[in-house]
Amino acid sequence: MTLQALISPGSVAVIGASAKPRTIGYTISAQLIKRFRGRVYLVNPNYGEGVIEGRTVKFYRSVLDIEDEVDMAVVAVPAKAVPGVLEEAGRKGVKVAVIVSGGFAEAGNAELEAEVARVAGVYGVRVLGPNCVGVYNAEVGLDTMFLPEEKAARPAGGPIAFISQSGAVMTAILDWAAAEGIGIGLAVNVGNRADIGEGEILGLLRRLDYVKVAALYIEGFRRRREVEEFLRSAKEFSRDKPVLVYKAGRGADSARAAKSHTAALAGNYEYYKALFRQAGAIEAEDLLDLFDMAQALALLPLPKGPNTLVVTSSGGIGVQATDFLLEQGLKVPKTPQALEEELRRVLPPLASLGNPIDLTGGATNEDFANALERALDYFDMVLVAALIHPPGLDERLADYIIESTRRGKPIVVVSIGNSPAVKELERRLKGKVPVYNSPRRAARALWALYRYSEIKRGRSTPT
Amino acid sequence: MTLQALISPGSVAVIGASAKPRTIGYTISAQLIKRFRGRVYLVNPNYGEGVIEGRTVKFYRSVLDIEDEVDMAVVAVPAKAVPGVLEEAGRKGVKVAVIVSGGFAEAGNAELEAEVARVAGVYGVRVLGPNCVGVYNAEVGLDTMFLPEEKAARPAGGPIAFISQSGAVMTAILDWAAAEGIGIGLAVNVGNRADIGEGEILGLLRRLDYVKVAALYIEGFRRRREVEEFLRSAKEFSRDKPVLVYKAGRGADSARAAKSHTAALAGNYEYYKALFRQAGAIEAEDLLDLFDMAQALALLPLPKGPNTLVVTSSGGIGVQATDFLLEQGLKVPKTPQALEEELRRVLPPLASLGNPIDLTGGATNEDFANALERALDYFDMVLVAALIHPPGLDERLADYIIESTRRGKPIVVVSIGNSPAVKELERRLKGKVPVYNSPRRAARALWALYRYSEIKRGRSTPT
Repeated sequence: MTLQALISPGSVAVIGASAKPRTIGYTISAQLIKRFRGRVYLVNPNYGEGVIEGRTVKFYRSVLDIEDEVDMAVVAVPAKAVPGVLEEAGRKGVKVAVIVSGGFAEAGNAELEAEVARVAGVYGVRVLGPNCVGVYNAEVGLDTMFLPEEKAARPAGGPIAFISQSGAVMTAILDWAAAEGIGIGLAVNVGNRADIGEGEILGLLRRLDYVKVAALYIEGFRRRREVEEFLRSAKEFSRDKPVLVYKAGRGADSARAAKSHTAALAGNYEYYKALFRQAGAIEAEDLLDLFDMAQALALLPLPKGPNTLVVTSSGGIGVQATDFLLEQGLKVPKTPQALEEELRRVLPPLASLGNPIDLTGGATNEDFANALERALDYFDMVLVAALIHPPGLDERLADYIIESTRRGKPIVVVSIGNSPAVKELERRLKGKVPVYNSPRRAARALWALYRYSEIKRGRSTPT
Repeated sequence: MTLQALISPGSVAVIGASAKPRTIGYTISAQLIKRFRGRVYLVNPNYGEGVIEGRTVKFYRSVLDIEDEVDMAVVAVPAKAVPGVLEEAGRKGVKVAVIVSGGFAEAGNAELEAEVARVAGVYGVRVLGPNCVGVYNAEVGLDTMFLPEEKAARPAGGPIAFISQSGAVMTAILDWAAAEGIGIGLAVNVGNRADIGEGEILGLLRRLDYVKVAALYIEGFRRRREVEEFLRSAKEFSRDKPVLVYKAGRGADSARAAKSHTAALAGNYEYYKALFRQAGAIEAEDLLDLFDMAQALALLPLPKGPNTLVVTSSGGIGVQATDFLLEQGLKVPKTPQALEEELRRVLPPLASLGNPIDLTGGATNEDFANALERALDYFDMVLVAALIHPPGLDERLADYIIESTRRGKPIVVVSIGNSPAVKELERRLKGKVPVYNSPRRAARALWALYRYSEIKRGRSTPT
């Protein structure tokens, strides 16, 4: 399939490559040479040879001179040179062109963008962008982003795929995710969307086993075709794997317009909400919420119902968690009588056994383990508020929680603090159990799991 | 004033002190010996002498044996021994007793708690707790918390005072705040509130110059007296300095009760909301929101109106910021014509000048400086989305932003990422301009500033 080349090309040509450090053409070339597992070719008529990242490299005068097949061309030349370069790429048989160059519709040059689309159509080259940072795929080392890693880190990989309408948002989020351990393995910036949009990308991601969840940042669609493609594709995707969407520009297509046209454009957001609901996509409140939910959906099994157990060492956090779970429409039902009697025999006398199960500041790691072991069967999912400051608790609580995940119920953890024991607890849980620094964030994550379980069951009632 | 001894006693006696490491009596003694700027006396009839933190220390048999005046007694003996110990403290003339011991009303022993209150009344000893972690005051090194710093760090100090009903929440928040650089300089856990409550503590804090804002975590009041004191004192406090409140148990007095009595207790939260409004207190959505707002209120001047300027290098973050500012009831008015013409002359041609002012990925530090310098006069406050990944931006943008604060308008910053330049930008801003990793959090902070400016003007209309 042609479009496959967008995320796993066998070979990539950088058109507008450069041997001059700190230029866009240099950075893209350097990243690909360092990381890409396929073949890399550099195109620039002004060089014959050059040095990039300490290696001597050859520059081709034109993509047509490359002896090998070229699956992807990354185009970083001035806007007005793009149609010509694209024509050459077409004649070469390039499957996908990632047009990094800006200066098209976003700068008032809609005609130039139309010309790009026309040339692409003639030769059957698929186009990402223009005006985009392109593609990051940790799995194959594909990285067309034009900022060096020292300035904008990339995450090591993971099960979350991110599709962003904004290049700056994609860059910032990847830089953030790298150190936070948010498992984003694949990211695509659609830019001006002259050709390839979210719908087709979702179609690609659906077939990738290593993608477990898609997270989208959308400001707005411009064409009916984009909407229809998104709807069809997201519907199909969400049957297999969850789609999350954070939509910005809620009051307006553009933030500026929001002021003068509030009423009309508030209606516009209602339109998007209906679209997302129909598509089986789950809406996030902001970018943090998007990745909070994505982490839970990527790591955890789905709950069979809304009944949530809260186990805590802090009564206060238990109360807060209950507030937010109920606010999200989940249930925090009372501990059944039989279970309460069982728990009474194994837990300390001061523990409160209702639900939350509050083990109090006298709790030990083993109390948490005992509570989880006996109570898990009675609930659909679990929020563990693992505040391990009390003397009887430490980082080993993480191991007990991980052990409990074997029972097939989704478990999320709230952890607050920065002392070494807290950080070690979080490190042990990383990649196995999602950890949030507030009960509200944890409750949102559990809601997303429950919401997706409803979507899977076909009961896409709005909540 | 007697109660002054709660936060800045001249001398402290630890009753139930211990030379046995890792006990509560040892940890409290060690913290005070290491950090407290006043005089510390240790009381335990079982020791004559002992070693704490490498120092040989003297133990008194009774607080009555101490030759000096004792302003504060920290009581960490078994619950049933507390009334006797408190009587001795009373006879000694101790002003405030912080009763760390648990096993009172919270454990069903309301009678024992009443006895404590009675003895305290007879001798005029004021009581914090029982069942509390007590007081942390960085200014004077007072620290009655019974967890060692290795396990639960304490923040270095700062203008925020935290009053928490929950000891575990106070401990976890201080541990979190220490590494995050949240400037909490003073924290008090009221525990069972047998005597001293939030109202009186606010009264104390009002007179401390180094406290700029009070942040409260409240689950619920039990007695009419507590409510009345809080209302009177918060009203008075909020005339001078902002009071923030996060109320948990929103659906219920206890989370468990939330399930069976939703309707009645939802009404209960309405009661608290009205109380907070009447008191001039600003409500937070959760603990993170509480300290997001507290940081802004502690650092920034108040705006004269709701008109907010957004300056950004990322159109996407600009759109998101506008969404959340409007959602909070703030205004993002269009750039006036005259200003737009002025900006047009100094900013790059691709910049979008409406509001947000979107400097695009081509932005430089100087573009931000130019935009801020010329636009500041036209708006009441500013949200700067400082995504510094583009090539023309770096950590020195922080210096320009700090420079702009001299103009007396409140400025908050959104920064997303973890690369060295991003961290350095954030480090430079720390303690001068609040930084948030999401536009939503930044918009909430600006809302808090505007809300408090309304409260100060006496127009405490609900928003």
